[in-house]
Amino acid sequence: MPLGRWTPLRHPEIDQVAIDDVLHALADPTRRRIVRMLIADGDRPCGTFGLEVSPSTLSHHFRSLRKAGIIRQFDSGRQRINTLRVAELDTRFPGLVDTILDSAPD
Amino acid sequence: MPLGRWTPLRHPEIDQVAIDDVLHALADPTRRRIVRMLIADGDRPCGTFGLEVSPSTLSHHFRSLRKAGIIRQFDSGRQRINTLRVAELDTRFPGLVDTILDSAPD
Repeated sequence: MPLGRWTPLRHPEIDQVAIDDVLHALADPTRRRIVRMLIADGDRPCGTFGLEVSPSTLSHHFRSLRKAGIIRQFDSGRQRINTLRVAELDTRFPGLVDTILDSAPD
Repeated sequence: MPLGRWTPLRHPEIDQVAIDDVLHALADPTRRRIVRMLIADGDRPCGTFGLEVSPSTLSHHFRSLRKAGIIRQFDSGRQRINTLRVAELDTRFPGLVDTILDSAPD
């Protein structure tokens, strides 16, 4: 049975997303780069970002973004796909993600 | 000689302020409350904020805000006065502090 091979990934409901988690998640240049790549190119699997960090560090960054409500992750075959929740976030914190990305030089 | 009784307080130049430090500093409800009180009431000494946190925790919060370039602190007699650098910050990160404060429910 392929279902149940993975622990289901937890995603906060948008009204449970905490501003402190969003700010901490975006206070890192690698995580901002992930968000910028998702904005530019749309959904993509974890292994395709070409970032020069170790797999465990990369997993940590994706987990931070997921727990902060900034991305959703779902498993498709052997790939874990990442998708942005910026439209949802924007209903809760209008303009926040854009303003942070505009402020960061990276 | 009253001068030299304190170690001079370090303040980053505005062009050295790091976005990551600003985001971490504002990812805390007590620190946001300090900023909101300074916006509402202007400069005030550390001991007058009426926050229910220990003196050491309060010192930590003020230090985080100072190192992130959000406040300046200077000693006047026996008091340490806090003053906002939001106008300066706004030249470097337009709208960032306001957008974060508007996003936070506290």
